[in-house]
Amino acid sequence: MTDYQKVLDSIYEDVNKDKIRGDVANYIPALSKVSLEHFGMTLRTSDGKEYAVGESDQNFSIQSISKLFILTMVMMHTDSDRWDRVGREPSGNSFNSLVQLEQENGKPRNPFINAGAIVMTDYLHDFYKRPGESILEFVRKISQNNTIGVNRDVFESEKATGHRNYALGHFMKSYENINHDVIKVLETYFFHCSIEMSCDDLARSVDYLVHSGKNIIEKSKARRINALMLTCGPYDDAGEFAFRIGIPTKSGVGGGIVGVCPGEYSVAVWSPGLNKAGNSLLGTKALRMLTNRLDSSIF
Amino acid sequence: MTDYQKVLDSIYEDVNKDKIRGDVANYIPALSKVSLEHFGMTLRTSDGKEYAVGESDQNFSIQSISKLFILTMVMMHTDSDRWDRVGREPSGNSFNSLVQLEQENGKPRNPFINAGAIVMTDYLHDFYKRPGESILEFVRKISQNNTIGVNRDVFESEKATGHRNYALGHFMKSYENINHDVIKVLETYFFHCSIEMSCDDLARSVDYLVHSGKNIIEKSKARRINALMLTCGPYDDAGEFAFRIGIPTKSGVGGGIVGVCPGEYSVAVWSPGLNKAGNSLLGTKALRMLTNRLDSSIF
Amino acid sequence: MTDYQKVLDSIYEDVNKDKIRGDVANYIPALSKVSLEHFGMTLRTSDGKEYAVGESDQNFSIQSISKLFILTMVMMHTDSDRWDRVGREPSGNSFNSLVQLEQENGKPRNPFINAGAIVMTDYLHDFYKRPGESILEFVRKISQNNTIGVNRDVFESEKATGHRNYALGHFMKSYENINHDVIKVLETYFFHCSIEMSCDDLARSVDYLVHSGKNIIEKSKARRINALMLTCGPYDDAGEFAFRIGIPTKSGVGGGIVGVCPGEYSVAVWSPGLNKAGNSLLGTKALRMLTNRLDSSIF
Amino acid sequence: MTDYQKVLDSIYEDVNKDKIRGDVANYIPALSKVSLEHFGMTLRTSDGKEYAVGESDQNFSIQSISKLFILTMVMMHTDSDRWDRVGREPSGNSFNSLVQLEQENGKPRNPFINAGAIVMTDYLHDFYKRPGESILEFVRKISQNNTIGVNRDVFESEKATGHRNYALGHFMKSYENINHDVIKVLETYFFHCSIEMSCDDLARSVDYLVHSGKNIIEKSKARRINALMLTCGPYDDAGEFAFRIGIPTKSGVGGGIVGVCPGEYSVAVWSPGLNKAGNSLLGTKALRMLTNRLDSSIF
Repeated sequence: MTDYQKVLDSIYEDVNKDKIRGDVANYIPALSKVSLEHFGMTLRTSDGKEYAVGESDQNFSIQSISKLFILTMVMMHTDSDRWDRVGREPSGNSFNSLVQLEQENGKPRNPFINAGAIVMTDYLHDFYKRPGESILEFVRKISQNNTIGVNRDVFESEKATGHRNYALGHFMKSYENINHDVIKVLETYFFHCSIEMSCDDLARSVDYLVHSGKNIIEKSKARRINALMLTCGPYDDAGEFAFRIGIPTKSGVGGGIVGVCPGEYSVAVWSPGLNKAGNSLLGTKALRMLTNRLDSSIF
Repeated sequence: MTDYQKVLDSIYEDVNKDKIRGDVANYIPALSKVSLEHFGMTLRTSDGKEYAVGESDQNFSIQSISKLFILTMVMMHTDSDRWDRVGREPSGNSFNSLVQLEQENGKPRNPFINAGAIVMTDYLHDFYKRPGESILEFVRKISQNNTIGVNRDVFESEKATGHRNYALGHFMKSYENINHDVIKVLETYFFHCSIEMSCDDLARSVDYLVHSGKNIIEKSKARRINALMLTCGPYDDAGEFAFRIGIPTKSGVGGGIVGVCPGEYSVAVWSPGLNKAGNSLLGTKALRMLTNRLDSSIF
Repeated sequence: MTDYQKVLDSIYEDVNKDKIRGDVANYIPALSKVSLEHFGMTLRTSDGKEYAVGESDQNFSIQSISKLFILTMVMMHTDSDRWDRVGREPSGNSFNSLVQLEQENGKPRNPFINAGAIVMTDYLHDFYKRPGESILEFVRKISQNNTIGVNRDVFESEKATGHRNYALGHFMKSYENINHDVIKVLETYFFHCSIEMSCDDLARSVDYLVHSGKNIIEKSKARRINALMLTCGPYDDAGEFAFRIGIPTKSGVGGGIVGVCPGEYSVAVWSPGLNKAGNSLLGTKALRMLTNRLDSSIF
Repeated sequence: MTDYQKVLDSIYEDVNKDKIRGDVANYIPALSKVSLEHFGMTLRTSDGKEYAVGESDQNFSIQSISKLFILTMVMMHTDSDRWDRVGREPSGNSFNSLVQLEQENGKPRNPFINAGAIVMTDYLHDFYKRPGESILEFVRKISQNNTIGVNRDVFESEKATGHRNYALGHFMKSYENINHDVIKVLETYFFHCSIEMSCDDLARSVDYLVHSGKNIIEKSKARRINALMLTCGPYDDAGEFAFRIGIPTKSGVGGGIVGVCPGEYSVAVWSPGLNKAGNSLLGTKALRMLTNRLDSSIF
């Protein structure tokens, strides 16, 4: 039997020795103050056992990991063949690029780049009267934690300085690929990016993706979400993640990464220092050690 | 001696036969209702004589022609070597493209594409307390017509639907290439695009560019404005304009084009139907006939 | 127990009804004459049982499927972390694009786009004196078929008309990302693209990827090859393939596609009509039916 | 009366003081050995008087200046409205870029970027049996110097190492925008780039552009060539040249620049050190001083 705790402990020991810890996201003022010293990691097996090291119960800004929840909520309401205002292809560009959007008439490449997640958030406004509240409700339910909420400082900070995202929203509106009011859609977008969760919460929250959608979404849809995570989850690093880590993941610029090994376990890791692609530097290393030491891979 | 009136008459006769008249700009609702039948043209010689055909005294939306006035106003206040947040190169892309802006870190190629004119408008906010009023004042002065004003419908229409321009503004703000409040700068931008003038007004307004800047701006700066008109004035058609028309021009999606033959004459033409590059279709043809029949060219 | 033959039979019945069969690759003269009516499919289980329908033993041009064998051969000789003149990211562009190559200084995105495979072929010239022969030898060995060879017409046709590939080769040489003589490297490239195999051969040839590299390559490398197939194998359709088919694949413009369900089976399908992304239209449909009806997916 | 010699002398004095002299083109081995110390300049008035400073009679590699002669030769044979496989727009990209070529289906933006000049050279193969000889003949005629020839070292050097140009040629051939054999067309291209001339030769050679085409080409075509020089001549610096120098020019990476002030004078300058855009650094400065001190400009 695998001794998961031992594996996590060995990873924790190794990352603690690492002096190179990346840089915090400095384009969101409220995030730029977070210390590089944080590290937490939680693994939850398919039968519900949880193993953790470091600050696994410490809240942090989930940022783009929220895109995974938004996608799931949209797919709960609509056949995955039907959401046709967003593609399903890796972008080959950085997560907030406008170039491809212009070349492809305002249709984002996938739901995990900012533009795609903004359109997904626009879809949510079709299904929910108060999308922000509904998102919180959903996230609390799947992570079995009713205290989860939004960090107001981060939210206000993004609303005031998120010019790149305003640009993306207005740009897609000019292609008529946003149906609702741009400003309202972006407010919801900034809202769900500002949700705070811990590694413990996150590992629990994606349990449905370990179990082919159990209780939350159909099997075929859960598999497709996993496929999207693998091909597009870690921004423009998705190829390297698939190549070296080998399981579906979704990262956020708050330094969190969540991963899913279907049928076996889910994992969440947090370390605020980012690499150039915007993924947690130590988090990426930790996941690489994990799948290597567990000899686990979907391939 | 050149019989300018005869040349204009012959052009008027020829364009009236033309059945292909292009399409009105449909992305600005208030402009999409204008009839394709309009045509007016005014030529003003360097010694102040004016010749006209068609609806030369009819007001229309000058749109991007206002970029010429904004540029002049900025250059009145600053050495042309100093405005360094905008380039001086043809863009090789359509007038509202974001692609190049992303590749070049938010610095627009020249002051005659939308992005460049928005930065120029941002500069104006450094120099004037009420930029909108100052622009109107300047335009009234150079065209010797105190009744010139803004079309409120067009202005409100652009403010409500100009998502592409909002995208450009926020995008450049994200690169810190807009100093003032984005929304305020765009309001001034939409304001000066909504100015209405006639061909008679326009031909008169650029008299200073026929006379090396006379009374308005230094000779070297006037020449540089003419150079920018030639290389960047008619959007992504500048090369063809230089090749076939051979004098500096600036066009607008309202269907107006203003041209300058230094030392000889200025000319303004209006016909609302546009070609693919966003320039007046008949206006372009008329200017081609004009320089051909007058055998005039700066080359 | 799964009745694989019954599943293949049902697929064969369904694709035979399909009137829309795509278009043959017309930029390679020798391929443009192939009939759209061909269809063959072979599935081989991890324990070596083979099931087939249609023209499963008919030879066809494997084209880009050869990139999979070239990659394997390079990885046999070098640590996968070491081949650093090619990336591991999805390109987000069509398979023969030069755009990204220019933006990224001549380094191809991955080994499955033409540029990347040309560099991989260049690597082969480091390891083998007669790379063409060595490739044939390897392919014959893994498919247990000593009669496999190259179609001379296709080879000559590509050598004479493959201007896009010559462009890619010279372009990368200008960035010093080709070490050997461009023309020789391209000759080897055209050579391995011109190999002919049947579905039966192909299904057998990738058995090592079903079995974590067995006898051919280390486990970690086999997994990485599978990961690259999933994220980059079917050109610019990789996202849709992962989303809808859910297993690693590699396609060729000859109309063949090979797929791997690790631990369970390999599959090869052939139908010459292509979709817009250059993948076999019916082949893609057949694989979608297969994983759906078998309820198999790596996610 | 203007004292041209005095103006040239003052320029010569000023450039000699300049310590920053740019870098020689290092991608053509035979050019990389040229000393940065060279400087020559020749001005020829419309009535045939010649003024010179420095090494004005020293031969150097004209490189892209030959594109001006090729364009003229093509236009001698065909109506300028008819050469439709090359555009007339500034490219907004560097002179050897492939990006735009791919986005615009193999049609180069203008005849002064490499791709455009290669297509123009392809046209020449329609009109001449031995294009290389015919080009030399034409250049000798217009510069009244029968000793003008090709530098064999430069020619062989470019043939052996011009991979970027081979890439451009094959790339356009793949779009069927090259009619003749790619390798032969490129040989002619490298041939005319390797012509050697002095400033004295060059100033004389473009006399027909000072005189509206006199004896060489129709007036309307001469003007159009001048227009193309202004908008596209100095590569991606055309806007700055128009803005600061104000007359049509064509530059080459050998460090030469030729300029035309219609009706007044032609000018040639040579200094091998280049700026980032590939134009002679001191040559550019010298031309700026010249038009400034002469107060000459087409605007």
